[in-house]
Amino acid sequence: MGKIILDGNVVAQEIRDGLKTRIEVLKNIGIIPCLATILVGDNPASETYVKMKGNACKRLGINSIRVHLPEETSTSELVETIIELNIDNSVHGILLQHPVPTHIDERAAFEAIDIRKDVDGVTSSGYGQTALGFGEYPSCTPAAIMKILEYYKILIDGKHAVVVGRSPILGKPVSALLLNANATVTTCHSKTSNLSEILKQADIVVAAVGKPEFIKGSWLKQGSIVLDAGYNKGNVGDVDYNSCYEVAGAITPVPGGVGPVTIATLMKHTVESAEKFYV
Amino acid sequence: MGKIILDGNVVAQEIRDGLKTRIEVLKNIGIIPCLATILVGDNPASETYVKMKGNACKRLGINSIRVHLPEETSTSELVETIIELNIDNSVHGILLQHPVPTHIDERAAFEAIDIRKDVDGVTSSGYGQTALGFGEYPSCTPAAIMKILEYYKILIDGKHAVVVGRSPILGKPVSALLLNANATVTTCHSKTSNLSEILKQADIVVAAVGKPEFIKGSWLKQGSIVLDAGYNKGNVGDVDYNSCYEVAGAITPVPGGVGPVTIATLMKHTVESAEKFYV
Repeated sequence: MGKIILDGNVVAQEIRDGLKTRIEVLKNIGIIPCLATILVGDNPASETYVKMKGNACKRLGINSIRVHLPEETSTSELVETIIELNIDNSVHGILLQHPVPTHIDERAAFEAIDIRKDVDGVTSSGYGQTALGFGEYPSCTPAAIMKILEYYKILIDGKHAVVVGRSPILGKPVSALLLNANATVTTCHSKTSNLSEILKQADIVVAAVGKPEFIKGSWLKQGSIVLDAGYNKGNVGDVDYNSCYEVAGAITPVPGGVGPVTIATLMKHTVESAEKFYV
Repeated sequence: MGKIILDGNVVAQEIRDGLKTRIEVLKNIGIIPCLATILVGDNPASETYVKMKGNACKRLGINSIRVHLPEETSTSELVETIIELNIDNSVHGILLQHPVPTHIDERAAFEAIDIRKDVDGVTSSGYGQTALGFGEYPSCTPAAIMKILEYYKILIDGKHAVVVGRSPILGKPVSALLLNANATVTTCHSKTSNLSEILKQADIVVAAVGKPEFIKGSWLKQGSIVLDAGYNKGNVGDVDYNSCYEVAGAITPVPGGVGPVTIATLMKHTVESAEKFYV
């Protein structure tokens, strides 16, 4: 195949289009899907992300509740807030924006989310179900990456996928999803000693490392499929786009690649949760 | 280093020695740790495994309850049995012997086990916690493999580990544990197209494929560490021992390798569960 730009906006549009009727059906029985977002502190990037998610809800006619807690919020106060949202029947999805301030036990907060409302797959139960192949809501970015591969009909079965990064909501779950889709999966990280050597073998590369323009084209195999889950200051991903573009067979741009599909996936999970709660 | 036979019996003995005092302490306050095993049907290999686990309990002075259900047991009957053991305060660990007859939904049965008694890490929650790095009871065979590596002071950090197999209680959790120990981890399986090429790069090989003598010495890198989690008819593992022995730097025998450490780990988890329930 020729070189393909994996345009996330068209994939996101397809997801949104598929949701419209489902949202109408819910509204006809008096239910409006609702996503609650929780932001702790004043990280400007996090504020932007939360705003984008709220806007995405608005555009689709989904309700959103925005909870903004001060920087000095304690773990137990945050958990309290989550429990209130758990028992609020009007809320179908809960998203705690990562990262929270360092004095908070983020894991304890994630674990407090009711699995039925864990639309971003952050709980260990949600992760476990995803990894064992029956999860309802895999983390949105990993799910978005799989959706892009599906949309562009990129074969995964039997391919060697290399994931760079091992975070609980990105590297680990995307490794699990690729494995369940019959890829041979190598998960690399900061302790990997021969990253470029391993990447040279990859048919599919997922960059989820959190370092701007980290992955270079010279490390890749000619024709490989490159999915950039990074989003760093200066609107750049974890992939050095220009050099990787030259070598890749297909590549997601930043912005306009994985990001919009992630947000559309969050909307989809919220609608699915509303359907499960009430239909 | 010279060639090392990774003797599981000495590792298992160390685990058991470490448990003796803990069991005494529990007995002094009137608590006897208790493992319940559930066997469904009459698979002779499974009967042997269950008997070995019961014998291991006896040798350590741990109670064991053996539940043997007929082949025709339904999923809901099996789940009922598990729920009874969940609420039985004298039981600290529940082990459902895999595999169950094919008409049973094994996953549903596993999921019914109370996570506090899931001493073999078979629930998706247990798996998720293990993979995210805070699991109490990882599956016993993966935990045994990690223990053998630790006992023999084999460096994992920065090494390339290749796991052959992706089952929920073996290939997936051992991949997760190795990743958390800072290995670069490749998980291979039946759809992997170039297994020998990937194994040739492995510093650490875990064979968890369920095929007798499947992995050949010619596929391995000189000096690699070989852990054979297989146990097949004729007392052979998943590794072709003679040819792998020639190439490996260290290798687990079958029998006497991973097996005894797995059973000792099950004892350890049962004692830990008893401690958590009552101390």
